[in-house]
Amino acid sequence: MRLVSFKVDGRAAFGVVKGDGIIDLTKHTGFKSLRELLAAGALPVVSALLGSLPADLPLEGTQLLPPIPDPGKIICVGLNYLDHVAETGRQLTENPALFPRFAASQIGHLAPLLKPLESDQLDYEGEVAVVIGKGGRRIQEADALSHVAGYSCYNDGSVRDWQYHTSQFMPGKNYVGTGGFGPWIVTTDEIPDPKVMTLTTTLNGTVMQNASVDMMITSIPAQIAYISTFTVLEPGDVIVTGTPGGVGAKRKPPVWMKDGDVIEITVGKVGTLRNVVKNERA
Amino acid sequence: MRLVSFKVDGRAAFGVVKGDGIIDLTKHTGFKSLRELLAAGALPVVSALLGSLPADLPLEGTQLLPPIPDPGKIICVGLNYLDHVAETGRQLTENPALFPRFAASQIGHLAPLLKPLESDQLDYEGEVAVVIGKGGRRIQEADALSHVAGYSCYNDGSVRDWQYHTSQFMPGKNYVGTGGFGPWIVTTDEIPDPKVMTLTTTLNGTVMQNASVDMMITSIPAQIAYISTFTVLEPGDVIVTGTPGGVGAKRKPPVWMKDGDVIEITVGKVGTLRNVVKNERA
Repeated sequence: MRLVSFKVDGRAAFGVVKGDGIIDLTKHTGFKSLRELLAAGALPVVSALLGSLPADLPLEGTQLLPPIPDPGKIICVGLNYLDHVAETGRQLTENPALFPRFAASQIGHLAPLLKPLESDQLDYEGEVAVVIGKGGRRIQEADALSHVAGYSCYNDGSVRDWQYHTSQFMPGKNYVGTGGFGPWIVTTDEIPDPKVMTLTTTLNGTVMQNASVDMMITSIPAQIAYISTFTVLEPGDVIVTGTPGGVGAKRKPPVWMKDGDVIEITVGKVGTLRNVVKNERA
Repeated sequence: MRLVSFKVDGRAAFGVVKGDGIIDLTKHTGFKSLRELLAAGALPVVSALLGSLPADLPLEGTQLLPPIPDPGKIICVGLNYLDHVAETGRQLTENPALFPRFAASQIGHLAPLLKPLESDQLDYEGEVAVVIGKGGRRIQEADALSHVAGYSCYNDGSVRDWQYHTSQFMPGKNYVGTGGFGPWIVTTDEIPDPKVMTLTTTLNGTVMQNASVDMMITSIPAQIAYISTFTVLEPGDVIVTGTPGGVGAKRKPPVWMKDGDVIEITVGKVGTLRNVVKNERA
């Protein structure tokens, strides 16, 4: 299933892609959001419903929102591919480096990706997003994938000068309008093994990053185990699993995204997240 | 006004302290939480109501929750007092170091503060918490205090080995049961100038940290201005404004909190947050 959040008649809604249309599940279920549906463990029920329901609106032309517009937590994993660790000049660590995004920074597929007023150092980071379906604490690695609802594409858009104001990355990772997420979540029944997913970032059609999930230093199950040791993972939480080498900041000369640039993140088995950069207006 | 969140008859509620009692505002208003009330801008209305309402339940013996149990964002400021910067051996930075807490890590006044199974390096950090009343983006420093609903005490409980797994502090700052917050929020009409607040941390009655808000490197208005440059501050968001020197980790020998320890954070004009450390059970 491809789960989407979207806007219709001025209200936020969510549903499932069927053919070239969307079934509006806010109409057919009592849930207001995908996060609520996941929290209720209602994904199997929805799956069973699908065959009998026609699409309510066309996919094309419908404004997609981030698949989870309001995650309780968005936890990003830094330095999780060897070539990216090498290009940053940092040391390998035994455990993953984690930093937050807040929901306020997210944008959906085809929404403008905002270049902030205060910086010209807007960079891309193509990543695979993991959406938690079943919460838990101290989840064992062997059991971790059963806690995943599905996968999506994420652009962990980074404002590099703000990221390096101090040792802590938060400011540069949370500019409003810089976190691309979508177009949808593909559920785990279609991707039982996340290691088969590939990840490609293109800027104006040129490949800038290219990797596969089996190259991660800390695997997706190991991330879930580590994170859920100290905190509680909850349905709708999002883990953004790290970017491979090739970021703009480390190129010589650096490549910064600018107004009109087209940035696309393709995750094999999921799809392509596309956003066009736009200068923020004062 | 002293705003509290609490449990009554098994449900979460919020209200205002009146004398030695609490007025239950979930009964008298249509709001389910303090965050909702702040978002609706209804604090002045509540204030006007107070004179005519009797207390609904006694303060003593009522289980207090973190004053905002479900903040959209909890942003912590690191390295914001010179003596703490010095004891950590870190460099001064022009901008504040920011890291997140998640709501799952919070506990209220008198709730047990949990020493994790995985670590013996549980440390205290007494801090002043700022609760946002009116949201905004790119808030000017001169206007920043008008966006504050009030102040509280915070214990930014830190699991030091997990904090230093990598360069990013998140894991050690988010263990479940380590973030003390309370006992209440004192509204800004009683504290028009936050610089007059003092901050004292005692462990088993011994003073471990002692400072005043005017010693902050980045002032509260400057924090609000900086944070709201990159993200949107929303009603109910919490800024935890930094800890002064004297943390346990930097003492010789280090002082770690252990089962039965009493940790108290006193903020002048607000009150005292008290928690007793308890070993987490497997």
